[in-house]
Amino acid sequence: MADVRDRNQVRVGVAGATGYAGQELVRLLAGHPHVRLELAMASSASSPRRDLPALAHLWDGGVVPLDLDALTEEIDAVFLALPEEASADVAPRLLARGVRVFDLSGAFRLRDGAARAQWYPKTGEVPSSIVYGLPELRRSELPAAQLVSCPGCYPTAAALGLGPLVRAGLIAGDIVIDAKSGVSGAGKAPSERTHFSECHGSVSAYGVFAHRHAAEIEQELGLSVTFVPHLVPLDRGILETIYTRVGAGTSEDTVAETYRAAYAGAPFVRVTGGTLPVIKQVAYTNFCDIGWKLDTKTGRLVVISVLDNLLKGAAGQAVQGFNIAFGFDERAGLLT
Amino acid sequence: MADVRDRNQVRVGVAGATGYAGQELVRLLAGHPHVRLELAMASSASSPRRDLPALAHLWDGGVVPLDLDALTEEIDAVFLALPEEASADVAPRLLARGVRVFDLSGAFRLRDGAARAQWYPKTGEVPSSIVYGLPELRRSELPAAQLVSCPGCYPTAAALGLGPLVRAGLIAGDIVIDAKSGVSGAGKAPSERTHFSECHGSVSAYGVFAHRHAAEIEQELGLSVTFVPHLVPLDRGILETIYTRVGAGTSEDTVAETYRAAYAGAPFVRVTGGTLPVIKQVAYTNFCDIGWKLDTKTGRLVVISVLDNLLKGAAGQAVQGFNIAFGFDERAGLLT
Amino acid sequence: MADVRDRNQVRVGVAGATGYAGQELVRLLAGHPHVRLELAMASSASSPRRDLPALAHLWDGGVVPLDLDALTEEIDAVFLALPEEASADVAPRLLARGVRVFDLSGAFRLRDGAARAQWYPKTGEVPSSIVYGLPELRRSELPAAQLVSCPGCYPTAAALGLGPLVRAGLIAGDIVIDAKSGVSGAGKAPSERTHFSECHGSVSAYGVFAHRHAAEIEQELGLSVTFVPHLVPLDRGILETIYTRVGAGTSEDTVAETYRAAYAGAPFVRVTGGTLPVIKQVAYTNFCDIGWKLDTKTGRLVVISVLDNLLKGAAGQAVQGFNIAFGFDERAGLLT
Amino acid sequence: MADVRDRNQVRVGVAGATGYAGQELVRLLAGHPHVRLELAMASSASSPRRDLPALAHLWDGGVVPLDLDALTEEIDAVFLALPEEASADVAPRLLARGVRVFDLSGAFRLRDGAARAQWYPKTGEVPSSIVYGLPELRRSELPAAQLVSCPGCYPTAAALGLGPLVRAGLIAGDIVIDAKSGVSGAGKAPSERTHFSECHGSVSAYGVFAHRHAAEIEQELGLSVTFVPHLVPLDRGILETIYTRVGAGTSEDTVAETYRAAYAGAPFVRVTGGTLPVIKQVAYTNFCDIGWKLDTKTGRLVVISVLDNLLKGAAGQAVQGFNIAFGFDERAGLLT
Repeated sequence: MADVRDRNQVRVGVAGATGYAGQELVRLLAGHPHVRLELAMASSASSPRRDLPALAHLWDGGVVPLDLDALTEEIDAVFLALPEEASADVAPRLLARGVRVFDLSGAFRLRDGAARAQWYPKTGEVPSSIVYGLPELRRSELPAAQLVSCPGCYPTAAALGLGPLVRAGLIAGDIVIDAKSGVSGAGKAPSERTHFSECHGSVSAYGVFAHRHAAEIEQELGLSVTFVPHLVPLDRGILETIYTRVGAGTSEDTVAETYRAAYAGAPFVRVTGGTLPVIKQVAYTNFCDIGWKLDTKTGRLVVISVLDNLLKGAAGQAVQGFNIAFGFDERAGLLT
Repeated sequence: MADVRDRNQVRVGVAGATGYAGQELVRLLAGHPHVRLELAMASSASSPRRDLPALAHLWDGGVVPLDLDALTEEIDAVFLALPEEASADVAPRLLARGVRVFDLSGAFRLRDGAARAQWYPKTGEVPSSIVYGLPELRRSELPAAQLVSCPGCYPTAAALGLGPLVRAGLIAGDIVIDAKSGVSGAGKAPSERTHFSECHGSVSAYGVFAHRHAAEIEQELGLSVTFVPHLVPLDRGILETIYTRVGAGTSEDTVAETYRAAYAGAPFVRVTGGTLPVIKQVAYTNFCDIGWKLDTKTGRLVVISVLDNLLKGAAGQAVQGFNIAFGFDERAGLLT
Repeated sequence: MADVRDRNQVRVGVAGATGYAGQELVRLLAGHPHVRLELAMASSASSPRRDLPALAHLWDGGVVPLDLDALTEEIDAVFLALPEEASADVAPRLLARGVRVFDLSGAFRLRDGAARAQWYPKTGEVPSSIVYGLPELRRSELPAAQLVSCPGCYPTAAALGLGPLVRAGLIAGDIVIDAKSGVSGAGKAPSERTHFSECHGSVSAYGVFAHRHAAEIEQELGLSVTFVPHLVPLDRGILETIYTRVGAGTSEDTVAETYRAAYAGAPFVRVTGGTLPVIKQVAYTNFCDIGWKLDTKTGRLVVISVLDNLLKGAAGQAVQGFNIAFGFDERAGLLT
Repeated sequence: MADVRDRNQVRVGVAGATGYAGQELVRLLAGHPHVRLELAMASSASSPRRDLPALAHLWDGGVVPLDLDALTEEIDAVFLALPEEASADVAPRLLARGVRVFDLSGAFRLRDGAARAQWYPKTGEVPSSIVYGLPELRRSELPAAQLVSCPGCYPTAAALGLGPLVRAGLIAGDIVIDAKSGVSGAGKAPSERTHFSECHGSVSAYGVFAHRHAAEIEQELGLSVTFVPHLVPLDRGILETIYTRVGAGTSEDTVAETYRAAYAGAPFVRVTGGTLPVIKQVAYTNFCDIGWKLDTKTGRLVVISVLDNLLKGAAGQAVQGFNIAFGFDERAGLLT
């Protein structure tokens, strides 16, 4: 397949390639028809070189220590799957050297300075050429972006699930978002709460009234929400159950047409209507599937939004944004 | 241990002993110090006799075809773990023969005739000596009951989690109940939605605006709720996340004291306060654990209520009600 | 990506597109650069048309009733993911019309007539142009094959794991193959043994001394084996632990070199040496990973072979065989 | 139930009460009719006092720092669920003070000095009054034991599954033991290999030719074995598939009768014959279930042995040994 990959290739590097999202990035970029993956780096300069056995035969370049000089030499774009503190430090330095940056951390997601200082205190100045990388909402802004701040997994599901209704002015009640997440969303570092025997056969709520993704969701919706995430015993995927009310007289057709119009040109959003989507149908894909039920007597609306937290909620969405930013087909390397 | 079991023993039968709740009943009753389990029967007269391998050495009497005559001969109490249509038919006939009945089905749970006709159309007359068998709320009524209608798993978690606050007049907003249930709650009959490969790695919402447990929850709380149950990939256990608001000025202490007072004498309810409970800590037990978080600035309250759907949500609760009804220690046979 | 797909495209149909392997076939073929997927059909002529929600935006052609006439009109190759009885009936009729057939069932896997009559009694004549479609062993035969009989999932893991050592004459003891399989290997039809609550938290052995894959394994190895498969509580993947002995004096280097030589040109076999592979690293890929431990004092050898039962064990392997049969890069459409 | 517990009570302490086996011990002993649980201690003197939320209302005494003086004051028996190094140190000191000790660690399991020095180098002198606490094999020795060294989970399943056949002289071939274990067997300390996302959807072999339980199995069987344990994605339970051959002419009846005779008086061993047992039927119980298949033509025998690694493989077995040692019904506190 060398013939395909020789043309129009962007030279790309990845920093933070050993975490779950980082490995997905390496996998996607190594197989991307318009990318030449040059380097996969760890999260720090002191990490020893290591291989990625799961990616053998796909990417045999290993993961080398973080090295900003190497990461900007004959590289056009860098994906950062780093802890937010590291991203806050590294991203501006890469931008200063003229490399386009796709940051998967939360460091640059919040536009409000006070909120950012609360949740991401290590983030300094935010570059002016930044775009919040939710392609379905910001497709036209991406080509000019130097820094693409990729959304969090929970905010992606919420913004795609509820955004069109909010923008259409249909929402007329409090918003409750009950999220169920696979454990890979908690990252790769072992801990008591992600220990197999603690998660298996269990469900746990966490971060009630204190999860920074709530601020990001509220930013994207422009509305206050009650957001409670839960760990459920699966690896990959998120299901959000969104509870609200629509205004009197809002019909099922209005809701359906609002979604249809919003996602007519969106290859990775699938609106399923009254057939509520499940995690299994989006796991290991870049799709976000959205269904809903409306009780027209009371105006109560329940929206179900599902995605794979490591793909549409992280690495896949970053590649989707990259595709648009560089003028490729939005689906390149993602229709697997 | 024969010395213990000779005294004060009630002669008991079980109908519907092959389902998940039925097997739990047999296990609990076979080991109960004040019970002599006489008979375990299937759900129909045409079911062939079979053994229960998982209960070998605990109950070697097997499961025999349903036979009402045998079930009332020298039997003091019968537990029904039957489909609701069967319970609707069998329970009155057992009562007519003077046997006390503990019914785990939904046939007799709804007091409102219209609601009952909608959700349980096969149920005819409801006997006057019926008690809704939620021991923490009806302890004093149970000794006189001839028919104990045991609550559903979802309503138990909801009524225990929210009931004290409702009765104390603290609730001041809409109520959303987002329930996550293990798959054993869907019963033992194979189906596409309970097929392993469909559930594993997935979460699915079901019964939105159309689950009969919503009617039962509303009956017990006396308030309207939005209730959405979900299947999560585990076997046993329910976690309900309950969203509402409390009135202005309601403090954490008020909430804590309300729960404390409500459950001071309840051996099977454990109030965990701000340490939110998880399913794992109640699976395979008869406990219902309740925790909560209050945002005093906004009055938003999130309550987490967890229990094992086959024990506190079914068989264990029925035995607990039986203990009270017959004057035994509420915990007999249940502290395992 | 239209530019890629216009050239050198083979017109393909799938029969049996609603099962787990069938859906994987549709997904792979719909995204294959050298395939034009024309039709996806059900397993019988009486199945109603249905959609595949998980494949929306990838394959929106739905699944139509089985129709052999339509399946051979302007079609170059057909993949059969049918029950073996249906394949035994359909494959010869397709071949007679000049269509190349890739059969995923067991109908044509056994070459010995007596064994075939025992395990696949519905299979009649076996066409002469048949090739057993294990690409790593039959690469050179595939271009001429009209009927490719794709191996079973268990035999693939066993033949790849042990085959090179057998052919090198290194094996000097009994062979025990203990296989652990995800539940998707049992297919999509609900049953008691694949009911979620029966599989979750459990492991079960089945088919002891009576699994037809044992005959297929013995055919491919040319040796007698003891084979016991087990269901383990995961969806996709197989791990086989193979126990045997090597001859006196066989060193680790000899074993390593034997594998290296066998798989030097095999893109989908990864030999991991003493780092034993796990299912997770091959799930959702077409790789078979093989590791081993040798106790040189006693000659005891343990080989671990892992693969995804729906890809390298079914749909992926079929596409790999198709690629070779039609002269494409072996990896086309499979490096995802 | 105080009336029951006042009579014949043994005063008991637990050291190592925070691990998975330790918590099971506390649960069992707190509800044991002949035990007064006096103290539950951590594994070290420096561990802060903590509560056990899952055991609230069953044992509200918390877990206090390890303190040997307190642990021997008015205490009759101590259960040690400590790391083996700690047990090697603590057990002799408790014995010297006249307390009977039930040790769940491996420190004292191996009788051969050389093997013990290899696998448990911290263990010093082994007291003369020691008994290997497998009740089904050593029932008569337990009443006189001062130190009961409780078997490991893997050796229990193997010794119960194969022991009767070995002692009857029926085994005539190599022995391969392929064990599948739930992850709780790996303990409570978080690690990469027990991280949820690494275990979920995966199976992994470990400790090939290098697991100390192999030495213990060989000690109990008196034969050499090939033993490979695997982690499977469940919490509690072990299934061992044991492969061997029986001598020519050994019939199914001979095997069945051998098991029957061996376990006629064993309340916790259930022989299931040709209906192979599964983990689910023993999880959360103290049973070991054993089934088998014999190929009389070839003499190949496959035995399946299942148990709950935290109960029959650890805490339950220790309590069973305690019951026998103190003259109680073997089942006391265990028939749950």
